[in-house]
Amino acid sequence: MLISAVSNCLAQWHFPIAFFLAGGELSHGDPVVPILIAAIFITMGAALGGVLMKWVKQPAVLGELLVGLLAGNLGYYFANPTLTVLREGDNLAHISSLALSAPLSMGEAALKVLPPGPHTDRLVQLLSGPHGQTYISVYSFIDVVSRLAILVLLFLVGLEVSLVKMKRVGKYATYVAVLGIVLPMVLGMGSMKLLYPNNPLAVDLFIGGILTATSVGITARVLRDIGRETTEEARIILGAAVIDDVLSLIVLAVVSGLAVTGTISFSSIAIITGKAAFFLVASMGLGIWLMPKLVRRLATYGVQNLKLLFGVSFALLLSWLANVAELATIVGAFAAGMILNSFFDKEVEGISLHDLLTPIESLVVPLFFVWMGIQVKLETMARKDVLIAGLALTIVAIVGKVASGWGCPASMNRLAVGFGMMPRGEVGLIFAGIGKGIGVVDEGLFSAVVLLVMVTTVLAPILLRATLGIHPNAPSIQSSAASLH
Amino acid sequence: MLISAVSNCLAQWHFPIAFFLAGGELSHGDPVVPILIAAIFITMGAALGGVLMKWVKQPAVLGELLVGLLAGNLGYYFANPTLTVLREGDNLAHISSLALSAPLSMGEAALKVLPPGPHTDRLVQLLSGPHGQTYISVYSFIDVVSRLAILVLLFLVGLEVSLVKMKRVGKYATYVAVLGIVLPMVLGMGSMKLLYPNNPLAVDLFIGGILTATSVGITARVLRDIGRETTEEARIILGAAVIDDVLSLIVLAVVSGLAVTGTISFSSIAIITGKAAFFLVASMGLGIWLMPKLVRRLATYGVQNLKLLFGVSFALLLSWLANVAELATIVGAFAAGMILNSFFDKEVEGISLHDLLTPIESLVVPLFFVWMGIQVKLETMARKDVLIAGLALTIVAIVGKVASGWGCPASMNRLAVGFGMMPRGEVGLIFAGIGKGIGVVDEGLFSAVVLLVMVTTVLAPILLRATLGIHPNAPSIQSSAASLH
Repeated sequence: MLISAVSNCLAQWHFPIAFFLAGGELSHGDPVVPILIAAIFITMGAALGGVLMKWVKQPAVLGELLVGLLAGNLGYYFANPTLTVLREGDNLAHISSLALSAPLSMGEAALKVLPPGPHTDRLVQLLSGPHGQTYISVYSFIDVVSRLAILVLLFLVGLEVSLVKMKRVGKYATYVAVLGIVLPMVLGMGSMKLLYPNNPLAVDLFIGGILTATSVGITARVLRDIGRETTEEARIILGAAVIDDVLSLIVLAVVSGLAVTGTISFSSIAIITGKAAFFLVASMGLGIWLMPKLVRRLATYGVQNLKLLFGVSFALLLSWLANVAELATIVGAFAAGMILNSFFDKEVEGISLHDLLTPIESLVVPLFFVWMGIQVKLETMARKDVLIAGLALTIVAIVGKVASGWGCPASMNRLAVGFGMMPRGEVGLIFAGIGKGIGVVDEGLFSAVVLLVMVTTVLAPILLRATLGIHPNAPSIQSSAASLH
Repeated sequence: MLISAVSNCLAQWHFPIAFFLAGGELSHGDPVVPILIAAIFITMGAALGGVLMKWVKQPAVLGELLVGLLAGNLGYYFANPTLTVLREGDNLAHISSLALSAPLSMGEAALKVLPPGPHTDRLVQLLSGPHGQTYISVYSFIDVVSRLAILVLLFLVGLEVSLVKMKRVGKYATYVAVLGIVLPMVLGMGSMKLLYPNNPLAVDLFIGGILTATSVGITARVLRDIGRETTEEARIILGAAVIDDVLSLIVLAVVSGLAVTGTISFSSIAIITGKAAFFLVASMGLGIWLMPKLVRRLATYGVQNLKLLFGVSFALLLSWLANVAELATIVGAFAAGMILNSFFDKEVEGISLHDLLTPIESLVVPLFFVWMGIQVKLETMARKDVLIAGLALTIVAIVGKVASGWGCPASMNRLAVGFGMMPRGEVGLIFAGIGKGIGVVDEGLFSAVVLLVMVTTVLAPILLRATLGIHPNAPSIQSSAASLH
C-alpha cells in the first residue's frame, strides 16, 4: 500500500520537471524551478518520514533515511530519470567538472568517468538529453546544502557540549568512551582484513573509524522519552558520547589524512593526531580568550540579527581553518560550537544562538539524511561479499559498543550503558560520505554502512527501553547508582 | 580609510581560494570550501553593513547593498579574479550551460556568449584557469540561494499581511495605492520613451513596473523608530503599501509576460492580468477552504519541526504553481504567506511560523542584497545616456510616489504619506533582477535601478522624520486624523 503510493508518487516526480522544461522557453523559465521541485519533494518527504516515525515511536532521522532510500531505489527500479541520475552522487560532480574544463559535452564526459555498460549508456543518454543541465544544477544544490547542513548540525552539537559537565561525569565516562572507540575500531578493522585481505589498509582504517562514532542526539532523545535522563547511567552515556564525538573527529582526521596521502606510518599517525589535537586545543584556547572581548564589543551595537550572522560566520570561519590545518571541516564547526557555547548567549541579549539555529537545522539537516538515503544503492548489496561484509560490520558495530558498557562498575546497569552507546546516526554517516567522496569507501560498502547506521539506530531505543523499563513511572534505578558515592 | 581597508581585504580575498586550490589535491579537497569562503565574506559583509547602518541610523538593507556594491566594483578595479568573474552574474549561467551541453570548454563557451574585447579575453583566461570551475560553483550556489531567499522574504511579507486589517484602512489607502502605482508607471514609461525613443515597449513597461513597488518593511521600520506607527497617516501608508505589493505583483506578471511573448496587445494584457488575479483569488479561496482540514490533521501528530517543514514546502509548492500559471514564483510565495497567515499558528501550537522563519530570513536574505550590490557595474554608468536615464528615473520615482499622498484628504499630512510610500527596497530589486534575467533590463539600466532603490531608501526616513518631527515624545498628529471620523 505504502510502496505503491510511493512508487506512484515517484512515477509522477519527473512529470513536473519535464513539463517545465518543455514549456520553459515559453514561460519565465526561472532557473530556480527545478530546484524548487526537488526541494518540495525533499522537505515533504522529510516531513512524511518524521510523521511516520513519530507514529511507530522511532527517531525522525530514521524516517528521513528511509524516505531517501525508498525514493532512490524505487525511482531507479521504475526507471525514473531524475532519481536514476541523482543517486549517482559524486560521479555527477566528476562528470560536470570534466565537461566544463575540457572540450567535451556532458555525455562524452560521462563515458570517460563511468565504467562501460548498459547503466552508463542510460546515464549518457539522460545527461545528453534536454534535462541534462537541470540534473546537474539540482545535484549541486542538494550536495552543497547537505554539506553545509552537516556543519550546522555539528555546530549545534558543539553548542550543546558543556566542558564543565564533561569534567563532572569523570573517569567512568572516559573509560566507556575509550572502550567504545578502541573496540569497534579494532573489531571493524579485523573483520575487514578477514573478509577482504587484499584491500589497502586505508579502507580498513576508514571502516573501523566509521564504527567508532556515537550519536549523542538519538540516545539523549530516547532517555528523555522514557524519563531516565537523570540516572547515573544516562549521565555516563551522554558524557561518553560527547567524549566519543571529540575522539572520533580526531580518528576521522587521522584516517582521512592517511587515506589521502596513502602512506601509513607511525610518524604520520602521530603528526595528524597531534595536528588535530592542537587545532582543537588552540582554537578553544584562543577562542575562549578572544571571544569575551569581541562579543562585548558586538553587544554594544545591539543589532537584532547580528548574533546569528556573527555566530554562523564564526562557525564557517573555523570550518575553513580546520581545512587549512588539513582536518575535516566538521571539526572546525564543532570547535566553534564549543567556544561559543554558553558565554556568547550570556553576553548578547535576546534569543539564544541555539534557539536561532534550531529552525535552520530542522529545515536543512533532514535534507542531508534524505540525500544519504537516496545514494544507497541496494542493488550493489546483491553481491554476496557485500552482503556478508554488511552483516559482519553490523554485528561488530553492536558488539563493540555494547562491550564498552563494561567500562563502568558492576554495580551499574552495564548493558543499558552499552545499548545507549550503540546508535551511530549522523557522525557515522558523515564519515561514510567523506570516505565515498575521497574514493576510499566504494558504493557497496557505503550502502552497507548506511544500513548499519539504520539498524543500530532502530535497535538502540528498543533495547534501552527493554533494559531500563518502559513505564516512565517505574521504580528508578538511581538508588543503585547513588550507592556509588 | 574605509576604502583602503576594504580594498586590502578584497586583495586578500582571492588568496584563500588560490591557496586551497593549489593545495587542494593534497588536502581533503572538500568541494564545499570555496563556497564556505564566499559565505564567510557575504555573512560578515552583511553583518558589517548592518552595524554601519545602525550607526548612521539607516535600514540594514542599505548597508548590505553598499557592501556588495563596494566589493564588486573595488574588486573589479583592483583586478580581483573572483569578483571580476562573479559580478558577470547571469552571463556565467549562460557560459556554463553552453560548456556542459556542447563539446566546448568554458573558455570557448565564454567567447561565444560575450561580446569580443579585452574584458572578455580576461574572463576567458580566468574561466580556463585552474579555478574556473570554482567560480561557477560559487556563482551557482549564491545565485540559487538568493533566488530562494526572495521566496522566503515574500512568504514572510505575506505572513504579515492581514486581510481584515487591509479592509479596515479602507478607501484612502486604496486611492493612495492606486495613485502610487499609476503615476510612477506612467511617468517612468514616459521618460523612457523620451530618452530612448527606439527601445521596444517591453523595456519601457518593465522600467515603469519597477517604479511601482513600495517596500512595506522599510517604511514600517522608520515609523516604529520614530514612534508614529499608530497615527492615521501611518495606517494609510502601511495599508497602501500592502495593496501596492499585491498590485505590483500583478504588474510584474503582466510586464514580464509581455516581455517574454513579445506581443503587446490589449487582449494579452487582459489575459495575463486575469490569470494573475485568478491565481491569487483561487489559491486564497482554495487555501482558506482546504487549510483548516489539513492543519487540524497535522496538529494531531504534534511533531516539533513539522510546522516549519510543512509551511516551507507549502510556500515552495505555491511558488511552483505560480510558475505553472506563467506568473513569477514570488507571487506564489506571497499568496502562501497570506493563506497561512494567522490561522495556521492558532491551530498548531508552539512557536509561530513567523518566528521560526525569522532566523532563516535574517541568514539568507542579506545574501540576496549583497549579491544584487555585487552585480552593479558602476562603469556602465560612465556612459552619459545611462547617467541621465538614472537621474531622470530617480526623480520620477520620487515625484510619482510623493504625489500619491494627494490620494488622502487635505486635513491629513499628505507629504508624510507620500514620503512614506517612497522607498522601493526589495520588490523593486526583485523586479530588476527578473528583468535582467530575461534580458529586458540591460546592465546599465540595472545599475541605475539599484542606485535609484538606494537613493529612495535613504531619503524616505530622512524626509519622514523631518515632516513628522524627530522626537518620539513630540505632540502627536493623531488629533487632526481623529477629526476625520
